[in-house]
Amino acid sequence: MIEKISGGVCAPLGFRANGVHCGIRKNKLKKDLALIVSDVHCAAAGVYTKNLVKGAPILVTKEHIKDGFAQAVIVNSGNANTCNADGREIAEGMCLLAAEKLCLSAEDVLVASTGVIGQPLSLDPMREGMEELCGGLSRTGSSDAADAIMTTDTYRKEVAVSFRLGGKLCKMGAVAKGVGMICPNMATMLCFITTDAVISAEMLQRALAEDVKSSFNMLSVDRDTSTNDTLCILANGLAGNAPVTQMGADFRTFRRALHTVTVALCRMLAADGEGATKLLECRVRGARRQRDARLVAKAVISSDLLKAAMFGADANWGRVLCAVGYSGAEIDVGKVDVAFRTERGYLPVCKGGAGIPFSEEAAKDILSASEIGIEVDLGEGRYGATAWGCDLTYDYVKINGDYRT
Amino acid sequence: MIEKISGGVCAPLGFRANGVHCGIRKNKLKKDLALIVSDVHCAAAGVYTKNLVKGAPILVTKEHIKDGFAQAVIVNSGNANTCNADGREIAEGMCLLAAEKLCLSAEDVLVASTGVIGQPLSLDPMREGMEELCGGLSRTGSSDAADAIMTTDTYRKEVAVSFRLGGKLCKMGAVAKGVGMICPNMATMLCFITTDAVISAEMLQRALAEDVKSSFNMLSVDRDTSTNDTLCILANGLAGNAPVTQMGADFRTFRRALHTVTVALCRMLAADGEGATKLLECRVRGARRQRDARLVAKAVISSDLLKAAMFGADANWGRVLCAVGYSGAEIDVGKVDVAFRTERGYLPVCKGGAGIPFSEEAAKDILSASEIGIEVDLGEGRYGATAWGCDLTYDYVKINGDYRT
Repeated sequence: MIEKISGGVCAPLGFRANGVHCGIRKNKLKKDLALIVSDVHCAAAGVYTKNLVKGAPILVTKEHIKDGFAQAVIVNSGNANTCNADGREIAEGMCLLAAEKLCLSAEDVLVASTGVIGQPLSLDPMREGMEELCGGLSRTGSSDAADAIMTTDTYRKEVAVSFRLGGKLCKMGAVAKGVGMICPNMATMLCFITTDAVISAEMLQRALAEDVKSSFNMLSVDRDTSTNDTLCILANGLAGNAPVTQMGADFRTFRRALHTVTVALCRMLAADGEGATKLLECRVRGARRQRDARLVAKAVISSDLLKAAMFGADANWGRVLCAVGYSGAEIDVGKVDVAFRTERGYLPVCKGGAGIPFSEEAAKDILSASEIGIEVDLGEGRYGATAWGCDLTYDYVKINGDYRT
Repeated sequence: MIEKISGGVCAPLGFRANGVHCGIRKNKLKKDLALIVSDVHCAAAGVYTKNLVKGAPILVTKEHIKDGFAQAVIVNSGNANTCNADGREIAEGMCLLAAEKLCLSAEDVLVASTGVIGQPLSLDPMREGMEELCGGLSRTGSSDAADAIMTTDTYRKEVAVSFRLGGKLCKMGAVAKGVGMICPNMATMLCFITTDAVISAEMLQRALAEDVKSSFNMLSVDRDTSTNDTLCILANGLAGNAPVTQMGADFRTFRRALHTVTVALCRMLAADGEGATKLLECRVRGARRQRDARLVAKAVISSDLLKAAMFGADANWGRVLCAVGYSGAEIDVGKVDVAFRTERGYLPVCKGGAGIPFSEEAAKDILSASEIGIEVDLGEGRYGATAWGCDLTYDYVKINGDYRT
């Protein structure tokens, strides 16, 4: 039984967090530096962007996580520390600053940065803010950390769940950010997950790698794979369950808990996509292969034309079919059914690849909901997939027309 | 020596054209039916969308062109005749209507449709308009045909060139449409090319297939591959040159003339992209492989984030580098140089994968031009490529938020 609980990354035993404004950003009301720390050493795993242009923090985090252990994560917003000549040195410096204050080895600190690419990042404000950041670490600090990693996000992304492994109560929590440059490939924007479950680094990595295929990799705001995508998980083992070191019932439960957390975040991230007014969820079924189901779902929620139509509450299902057709999936067009489903009603629009009559008035009403389900049945097999996106709006253009200045 | 001339599809000897309003569209001021006819039988070739959802006219055109010959093209706008149960019958009917009036075999008439997907198309208005359409065919009718195939285009796309094959003066002309749902794959939106050169159907097909790799396939407005992309060429042989039936100097000249026509159309189509205010041209050089150069150029002009930044005249080169990184090309990030070039000036922004200082004020001025060159040097090899796109604007969202109603 997996239950949603409060507390974010601090919900699991033994984790503290904090977020402060240290001065990387000019706006003093916006926090820009976050820290998440476990009381004890953690098994750790991560997945990262596949963009060949990688933020310097990713290179450092990969090195620090190589041994399968970590104990803290330091994250700044306002600057991606990417495409800078001294990027690696700065990222190492961030780990060192946190490690000194926390009496940890710098190799046990992971690091991430998000913001503008190609502008120098100075350690000075972080050095000055470290006292406040570490001094304010608390068991209720998840929201502060979530606030500090936000860029153009309009609300913080936090989630936590409880579950049981062999009778022991375990918890898992997460914070995430990211509303633009989102089309994760093997990972996502920034997301940090904590758990007090006892699980080996190997199984943790396996769980993450499997999970992203049906969570973050099925999410797109603008098909732009970021240079800084980072998803890390820390498991400190304080729940005291029998260690999860192999496949089996406990691993499956852990996977389910993880999936509950990641899907909740995907929905939050898509709904808060830059300029978005609507969450789009494309649910595909009837595919002959898993791959086909995923290709179709991702293509539909990625289509700028469909995204603009959803913004305008226009039931232009031809754009759904068009995206199905160019998705790369092997499908029989003559078997495709399409329907829209929202809290305001259900609207079948296409049967066997051809249009069916519907009331434009009813369609406008149904599509005026803030969350739109696009249901595609390929009519050929037993595989399905779900993908998350958002509508394309004037505000997306506005936000990205002048992001840096 | 290839020279631009006037006359569009009627520039070559022996071609007549016309465009009328027959009533497919409600707006009586907008022409919706076009016809292009040669006085004599033509060698013919075509390339089409790779979208699995294909407009019914494409299936009919493919059949009619199979023998390598054709003599006329009939095209309607306002309805794509796609995803309709009777689509094929209607497309055949359009060919038959034109063939009867022109005393041709229906198998020598090609057909194309563009507009909304999934709404029934009636032959009635076309039957009624056929008298006016055929009666008005003229040697100066290219512009009328170009007007009649437009959808959300804001201006007509016509081009023509003259060139010499073995001393004989030859001409080539074209009309095209398409400003949204544009990311051609093996072909493009709608484009009809005429020439009076003598060339075999085989060499014509070869020329087309080679050309689109560096012309229409390097064009994107919104990464949405249309269901109705069709590019056909008719060669009626009236120029009387020695037949082009194999590789050699004449074929190369023909290819150059064709490329002049297609690139001119690509630039027009991109500049008139839905809602666009700026033409983007990404010129890549220094790639180790042809494939890499094309992947990079296409990724850069396709990025919504970069497109929005260009709309805002924001020199956010990090987004160029980000797109280079996820393009799929094998590159060394540390060797990438990026610069913006417009009629207002030249602005290098990135050297060896890292930012270089520049004046934001000068950048704003340079990027306020209506045509922006984005120059990417991968610094590794001798291959290059060019791709065309446009900025992403409020109007793209507006146009596509409610396209059907």
